Amino acid sequence: YMAEFEEVGAAFVDHYYSTFDTDRSELATLYTDESMMTFEGKAVQGVEGIMEKFGALSFEAVAHELTETDYQPTSDNGVLVHVLGLLKADDDPPHGFSQTFVLKPNPEDGSYFILNDIFRLHLHHVPTGTE
Amino acid sequence: YMAEFEEVGAAFVDHYYSTFDTDRSELATLYTDESMMTFEGKAVQGVEGIMEKFGALSFEAVAHELTETDYQPTSDNGVLVHVLGLLKADDDPPHGFSQTFVLKPNPEDGSYFILNDIFRLHLHHVPTGTE
Repeated sequence: YMAEFEEVGAAFVDHYYSTFDTDRSELATLYTDESMMTFEGKAVQGVEGIMEKFGALSFEAVAHELTETDYQPTSDNGVLVHVLGLLKADDDPPHGFSQTFVLKPNPEDGSYFILNDIFRLHLHHVPTGTE
Repeated sequence: YMAEFEEVGAAFVDHYYSTFDTDRSELATLYTDESMMTFEGKAVQGVEGIMEKFGALSFEAVAHELTETDYQPTSDNGVLVHVLGLLKADDDPPHGFSQTFVLKPNPEDGSYFILNDIFRLHLHHVPTGTE
């Protein structure tokens, strides 16, 4: 048994990362002009700016390997998603990342779009000793 | 210049982690019966269950060292918070963690409570090679 917010979150996560890793220009359908993305501390708003940001990412081949996904219902029938995973870009060694989304239902057709998106690589100022 | 959501987020983060690291039983004032916490994949709802969970954590001395904090406004005048940091528990080596909150204003007095809370240690199934 999965609650609806878990089904929505899991379907989104599958679709998002498979699209990102295949052709990230197709992610445009998931963002709107309301969408906010903070990518490594740089904030962008709106689908156009977000797609520019994706277009400017320097890697060609990319694979997200998900370690843990968590979902919670939130305000306004939204779904909060947290992903912990490893990012493999080109020939670099895999690197830990965290990404958080708030998905919001589109009142017209019930589909969900990304209202909030925060992405962070696991880069600390000091060695963690355990990773 | 800081936008209001950033001020709210930054003040919350300061207060949350200094309280957690001093006396985590005092965090009760930040949660309500609506609050959801998913801690290492275990979901709890409501202030009572959340405080029980905190009480059951096995460490005595704890320190959260924050590496990066990101804030975005979200639905219903909420604030989305993402924290990347290191957790030092007792004599264990520091360990990477990510924590995501949605803060929601209390309509009665404008103070914010924690609607959503997701916590994950950075534990991957395979070595990352870079951390």
